[in-house]
Amino acid sequence: MTDVSRRSFIGMGASAAALAAFGLAGCAPKQASSESSASAVSGSAADVKWDKEADVVVVGYGGAGAAAAIEAKRAGAEVVVLEEMPKGGGSTAACGGFIMMGGTPLQKKFGIDESVDNFYEYLCAAGGANANKDAIRLVADNSPALYDWCVECGMDFESGQVDTEHHLGGFNKGISLGFSGNEMARDYAAAAEPVPHGHLPQPGSSGQDIFKALSATVESLGIEVLLETPARRLVVDGGRVVGVMAEGPDGECAVRARKGVVLAAGGFTDNDEMVAACWPYPNERATSKISGGNENGSGIAMGLAIGAATRGLGDFQIGAPTVTMAEPLANGVLIDGKGRRIVAEDEYNSFMGKAITLAPTSTCYLLIDASFVQDDAAKKWAGEYVATVASVEEAAAATGIAASVLQRTIEFYNRSVEAGVDDEFGKDPRFLATPLEAPFDIYKRGSAACNFGSCGGLKIDLDARVLDTADAPIPGLYAAGRNSGSIYGWYMGSGSSMADVLTFGRIAGKNAAAESAEA
Amino acid sequence: MTDVSRRSFIGMGASAAALAAFGLAGCAPKQASSESSASAVSGSAADVKWDKEADVVVVGYGGAGAAAAIEAKRAGAEVVVLEEMPKGGGSTAACGGFIMMGGTPLQKKFGIDESVDNFYEYLCAAGGANANKDAIRLVADNSPALYDWCVECGMDFESGQVDTEHHLGGFNKGISLGFSGNEMARDYAAAAEPVPHGHLPQPGSSGQDIFKALSATVESLGIEVLLETPARRLVVDGGRVVGVMAEGPDGECAVRARKGVVLAAGGFTDNDEMVAACWPYPNERATSKISGGNENGSGIAMGLAIGAATRGLGDFQIGAPTVTMAEPLANGVLIDGKGRRIVAEDEYNSFMGKAITLAPTSTCYLLIDASFVQDDAAKKWAGEYVATVASVEEAAAATGIAASVLQRTIEFYNRSVEAGVDDEFGKDPRFLATPLEAPFDIYKRGSAACNFGSCGGLKIDLDARVLDTADAPIPGLYAAGRNSGSIYGWYMGSGSSMADVLTFGRIAGKNAAAESAEA
Repeated sequence: MTDVSRRSFIGMGASAAALAAFGLAGCAPKQASSESSASAVSGSAADVKWDKEADVVVVGYGGAGAAAAIEAKRAGAEVVVLEEMPKGGGSTAACGGFIMMGGTPLQKKFGIDESVDNFYEYLCAAGGANANKDAIRLVADNSPALYDWCVECGMDFESGQVDTEHHLGGFNKGISLGFSGNEMARDYAAAAEPVPHGHLPQPGSSGQDIFKALSATVESLGIEVLLETPARRLVVDGGRVVGVMAEGPDGECAVRARKGVVLAAGGFTDNDEMVAACWPYPNERATSKISGGNENGSGIAMGLAIGAATRGLGDFQIGAPTVTMAEPLANGVLIDGKGRRIVAEDEYNSFMGKAITLAPTSTCYLLIDASFVQDDAAKKWAGEYVATVASVEEAAAATGIAASVLQRTIEFYNRSVEAGVDDEFGKDPRFLATPLEAPFDIYKRGSAACNFGSCGGLKIDLDARVLDTADAPIPGLYAAGRNSGSIYGWYMGSGSSMADVLTFGRIAGKNAAAESAEA
Repeated sequence: MTDVSRRSFIGMGASAAALAAFGLAGCAPKQASSESSASAVSGSAADVKWDKEADVVVVGYGGAGAAAAIEAKRAGAEVVVLEEMPKGGGSTAACGGFIMMGGTPLQKKFGIDESVDNFYEYLCAAGGANANKDAIRLVADNSPALYDWCVECGMDFESGQVDTEHHLGGFNKGISLGFSGNEMARDYAAAAEPVPHGHLPQPGSSGQDIFKALSATVESLGIEVLLETPARRLVVDGGRVVGVMAEGPDGECAVRARKGVVLAAGGFTDNDEMVAACWPYPNERATSKISGGNENGSGIAMGLAIGAATRGLGDFQIGAPTVTMAEPLANGVLIDGKGRRIVAEDEYNSFMGKAITLAPTSTCYLLIDASFVQDDAAKKWAGEYVATVASVEEAAAATGIAASVLQRTIEFYNRSVEAGVDDEFGKDPRFLATPLEAPFDIYKRGSAACNFGSCGGLKIDLDARVLDTADAPIPGLYAAGRNSGSIYGWYMGSGSSMADVLTFGRIAGKNAAAESAEA
């Protein structure tokens, strides 16, 4: 048996090769074992005996899948959710609990009157040169409504406190509103008024609180959730996605979607092969992962398999917890392996991770007075202890960095301390109060010591429709969460992903429910 | 008609989703227009009426394809080459003409006695943390033999001169051996003895000279080349690649490969969609492309479509021609938008491009005395003129950089000039002779002004066999050139790509010819 017929070739020829990329216009199967040549694509609609059907089939029961299911159901659709794991939650339940929002009633309650425009400007600045501004505009404009929706789902933000002083992370218990990105850093404060955007549901200030509310809503709406039922492949009929082939506890399960399928099965953080194929940086790869543990890329793969385009596959969330987990460390001086300071040491973890990952050397160092590394958190997050040095020359010897460069870096830093202004990176004067003077400690904090999660995924439009490589929507197919590519050009703050996860999850569910049912 | 049958699903289920990535175990077609649902994969071997057959079918007639065809033919195979364009050459014919080699007779002729180990050490150092050292070992070990092979194909290196002083590029006419990477830069000179590796065939010192010799050899061997015959899809039978569906001038053309198919159809530089999906940097994207003009990713797509894995899709060759094209510019000071110097200004173009692309800001600046921007080349490559400034304060005003940081950068640079040693980046004292003093000129040279080419592609093993996502070779399928992912972790020098293009092209051709013919 051969996998390519002449007829199908003729059908594909004109558009296939030139625009093909990840999502190809047509493809043939490769068997894991080569002893058989079963074709993956054959037969007619009559061949599929549906085991189950619904208007909207949602693949993945994390934050995006739950949001999609809730909205589809509320719009009157019959919904079924397929989840691979024994319980729902995905990376939403595993995340830090932040939802980045602006222009919300909670901000108002705490005396912060932010416009959605200000939120938009912040997101654009923080997202960098490759951000999708149209999608960011949509997320910003929908932010107040998203807040109300979260509250309606049962999230409690009211019982927490506001923190307008710290970059949150690690010390956010009992806080429901705080900085969860780089709002306070000089370059971003110049682009938008620096107000806190990180919204944290109580009582736990964690992703569990987010998913608990979502799953309670899913249950109250009577939405069917099939656990331990991984979707394997999309079923396409006449160019339209009409269902999903899944594997339930009792074996194969063909699930028909009368109106549409929403892919919301997460990123590819835990798919080592795919990460290796996409990791772009010349420095050493980060090793620890930010995910709920099962971001295997399967949803992305299913989309690719039927010709979907992708966005931002080389975009990774990279964190260096130095500061957000232990604020006293912000008093140190973070340098690359050539001895140059690389970032304001009080910036948010993803900006710190970016600076470390893009540094000219895989190895970076934190130079810091021992007095700032006293509590357990500071000890834990400072990095790998290298040495305590009595002079710049000793520091040079311990790191292999030229003494003259180290001397310059330290001199300039101390001049900034004296002036109370960090002209180079704009570190908050709070953390600029102490000159770096020998003896000081050296800790190693290189790119390998960062952590990461995938940001790239399928390409969607503002209606959460999955696009093919010619930018045409694939009928019947939606995606949200990290099955879709991040709208930012760079991961830039805790809760920024949740903002697009919930916004586009909701849109996907609504729009899938609004499709005409297939006969 | 539905694209997924129950049977095929069962066949794929176990392995598909979890490890799937770009190359899926099985996929269904998405039609460009949705009015029909022609299945791309159906029928049996009997359905394919072969229009043509050969032992080895080579897809793409650039450097890798030519090398594969030559070796397959010499090994006794009947070979046919399919090329999309009206003539062969691809990006090989368009390249600068360098082949990076070490331990060669030409080096010896010029009094340079390099070991392959030294070459290996240089390649590893320059390729960075994510280099594939096993593949680099193979390339280095095979380098002397590759030189002999190139000569045997008719390349003339003997009539040119050696240049052991300059980074070549733009002024290499008549030179057949010179530096084409960062060998002379401090960090790499510490890793390996700095000797020139760039081998340039005469009389043109260009990629045309390379391809002319290869195509003459192909012709002399009587290898059939079908021009304007793009391959569209691989034909798989029993898990084995058995041929190619192509489109000739007279229509569809099914080409059977009795022994194997070699994919050598280039990278995806000209596929904007795929570049957009993979471009990883937070800074602005480079806009000008390094390619022969038709790197549409089709070969990579064909591999992906049957389950091939990929390597380094986020890896791009990034060049900033400042120095290699106009050496006087190396006397300037290249800084990022925060005012910090980012690289030794005499480094090779890809290292300059890397530094600019990884800088904290999209915009970088060259500060330089007007006396160094006199000739046409210098004027052309300096970048976009911003201003002539009479003081550091004026420079700060013209760039928006803090005057104190600029002052520090210039002071330190001038101290290095005085000492004759660049402690920070190790620039050659030749280019460190002139302090930067006002008045000086400012030119803009940001990430958008760099140029780029794709380095990622299909994953191959040391036998040039294409691997699937479980690292198992796909029977009958080979890849080389930029259809396969670069063996370096970062593009690091002119001719480094040609080294792996020719080495793995040769291996692919030999190994395909050595397969048992299919019945």
